[in-house]
Amino acid sequence: MSERRFNFQLHHTDGSARAGELETPHGNARTPFFMPVATQATVKGLTPEEVKGVGAQVVLSNSYHLYLRPGVETVAKFGGLHGFMGWDGPILTDSGGFQAFSMGPLRKVTDDGIGFQSHIDGSRHNFTPELATANQEKLAPDIAMCFDQCIAYGATEKEVRQAMDRTHRWAKQCFNAHQSSPTGASSGQALFGIVQGGTFPELREESAGAISSIPFHGYAVGGLAVGENKEDMYRFTDQVVRLLPSDKPRYLMGVGSPEDLVEGVSRGVDMFDCALPTRVARNGSLFTPNGRVDITKSKYQEQHDPVDASCDCYTCQNYSAAYLRHLFRSKELLGLRLASIHNLRFVLALMERMRESIVEERFDSFRREFLQVYKPADEAARQRQKGRWLLTHSG
Amino acid sequence: MSERRFNFQLHHTDGSARAGELETPHGNARTPFFMPVATQATVKGLTPEEVKGVGAQVVLSNSYHLYLRPGVETVAKFGGLHGFMGWDGPILTDSGGFQAFSMGPLRKVTDDGIGFQSHIDGSRHNFTPELATANQEKLAPDIAMCFDQCIAYGATEKEVRQAMDRTHRWAKQCFNAHQSSPTGASSGQALFGIVQGGTFPELREESAGAISSIPFHGYAVGGLAVGENKEDMYRFTDQVVRLLPSDKPRYLMGVGSPEDLVEGVSRGVDMFDCALPTRVARNGSLFTPNGRVDITKSKYQEQHDPVDASCDCYTCQNYSAAYLRHLFRSKELLGLRLASIHNLRFVLALMERMRESIVEERFDSFRREFLQVYKPADEAARQRQKGRWLLTHSG
Repeated sequence: MSERRFNFQLHHTDGSARAGELETPHGNARTPFFMPVATQATVKGLTPEEVKGVGAQVVLSNSYHLYLRPGVETVAKFGGLHGFMGWDGPILTDSGGFQAFSMGPLRKVTDDGIGFQSHIDGSRHNFTPELATANQEKLAPDIAMCFDQCIAYGATEKEVRQAMDRTHRWAKQCFNAHQSSPTGASSGQALFGIVQGGTFPELREESAGAISSIPFHGYAVGGLAVGENKEDMYRFTDQVVRLLPSDKPRYLMGVGSPEDLVEGVSRGVDMFDCALPTRVARNGSLFTPNGRVDITKSKYQEQHDPVDASCDCYTCQNYSAAYLRHLFRSKELLGLRLASIHNLRFVLALMERMRESIVEERFDSFRREFLQVYKPADEAARQRQKGRWLLTHSG
Repeated sequence: MSERRFNFQLHHTDGSARAGELETPHGNARTPFFMPVATQATVKGLTPEEVKGVGAQVVLSNSYHLYLRPGVETVAKFGGLHGFMGWDGPILTDSGGFQAFSMGPLRKVTDDGIGFQSHIDGSRHNFTPELATANQEKLAPDIAMCFDQCIAYGATEKEVRQAMDRTHRWAKQCFNAHQSSPTGASSGQALFGIVQGGTFPELREESAGAISSIPFHGYAVGGLAVGENKEDMYRFTDQVVRLLPSDKPRYLMGVGSPEDLVEGVSRGVDMFDCALPTRVARNGSLFTPNGRVDITKSKYQEQHDPVDASCDCYTCQNYSAAYLRHLFRSKELLGLRLASIHNLRFVLALMERMRESIVEERFDSFRREFLQVYKPADEAARQRQKGRWLLTHSG
């Protein structure tokens, strides 16, 4: 890593919404930002140049996946993820905790860590806070995450408390391991803590206190967007963010859809990640200012205009909706690519517009106007899709 | 179409090998050239910019596929294939004859044309020489092909003669239809005739005479690379090319592999097309100066060098073999793309080097040196793969 260290500067606030800048060893990133998901060291179908081209500043990779394949030692031989995948901007990795959570019956949680079977070959592995931290040091992202125990929506208060208490103990273990390692904190790598506590306000308050008592470089809200309804997600985001230190970046994990990004920013969140924009793109579902549309519908058969005439992305600047529809109906790879580019650009342009409106102190009217026009995807369909996705452990 | 017309100029010969230039309504192309296959109006996984970036001058699309989906009328509403797919260079379309041939039991050939069932929805269709020509006028490529009857390797002389006689009659019908249509020859679109005759030297001679007696803009050798061994393919290419007018471009359809391109050029062929480079790329088989390699092999696990250190393509300039291997093992879309870019560049750079060696009158030594080092893929594996491909009618 370079001499540059991790730092966060808050430049503007507008209500609870914030605009700032993150400094990392691989360059700066203006907040609030959205991180495209590069689960297996690639944003599905896109080159690093294309990911940069849609306006991404930071990408997220999954250490669970990379630990299993190609292996963290292999990635380390390329100088970490930056050298391996050819992305020269900031990278954040998750710890593997969420993937372990999403594996259902294939995993076993103890106070020591999480044992699981590989989804690739069934081989047995065990993640501890120390191993998860060491794995991320080998992957060498700019930001590593604490190993935590996420818990399913609907768990009892007792179960949630047990997982939360573990998460707090593990957070200290991760912090200590990262502090003492020559490839950890002293190398310039940041480590973020994760607040858990499910949908129990008292637990959320306790967790926010426990986690923010450890001097992490940033704080994440975990355990949301896992099946609870949107009102709960917004409520607990709101509650936790208010309890976090204002001089550190706040990261809402696994969010989200365009409307959730707007709601998150309005509550003071600085960082987001989600596979949704690229995942739904590969199903032919494209974002427009009015909501998601299905590009395979016959109404696009002869549409010369792009899918979103207001969009400045490569796809909308160069291809008709009719051609995009043809690619999807013909199951052509280029369709997946063009749709992914558009959906990422839609979300990243939304982040840029939100930041601008914060700086110009008109965020609230921007939010109102956006949400007035944008029709969220059907909630029931959304939950079903999320459930299916959690079952398949896919990126 | 523009005012520019179709024209061919022969600039250099070196033995039988030729270097020239094709003028088309959408720009010039230096011969000999290889056309990447854009079966369904897209070179699988690549943008037009990337296809141009690997050095492609002309692409080939399949009118059979485009007739079924999205339909030639739809493409016509976008000003033809150029507008529909966003490729501004020359385009050649095949007539659908070869696809009809490859459909086996789903097709029925009469003197009037070929009846077939759609591989998409089983609907019934009938291609006649006139319809195939009209379809291609609607698709508006720079070069259209005559509707012909290709016949399987191993057919009897009687069967081959019958198909050849039909092909000759259909060639006249195609020529006449194309001459009289305002969107045909008078629009600047070229039409090429196709020589058939299977593996019977007398029939090949007769077919070359019959087809070259019609003043087409160029002449193709059809009915090869359909299962015969390489010696036969080279022998019949040699025989037919010698019987074609030297002032017109010669196109060897469905070829080929790197070694076949070298052998074709050495026999005086000017144009080639084949899905092989992109098809094997998607299976992780990459061209190198020594032959094809399987990128998923464990020897690449930690290879920092690209798959072909001598290659100037985007893939080899930017990614390690280890990363490419990781993408393939992880079934990541980007792997298909990077491999396709490399294989196309390998073939197109080979064409450029052949042209240079012809201009500098050292083609024969270039050919010898290339073939000495390049180890062709196993012949038996090649035939099996081709057979599988013909069965699935895939591009």
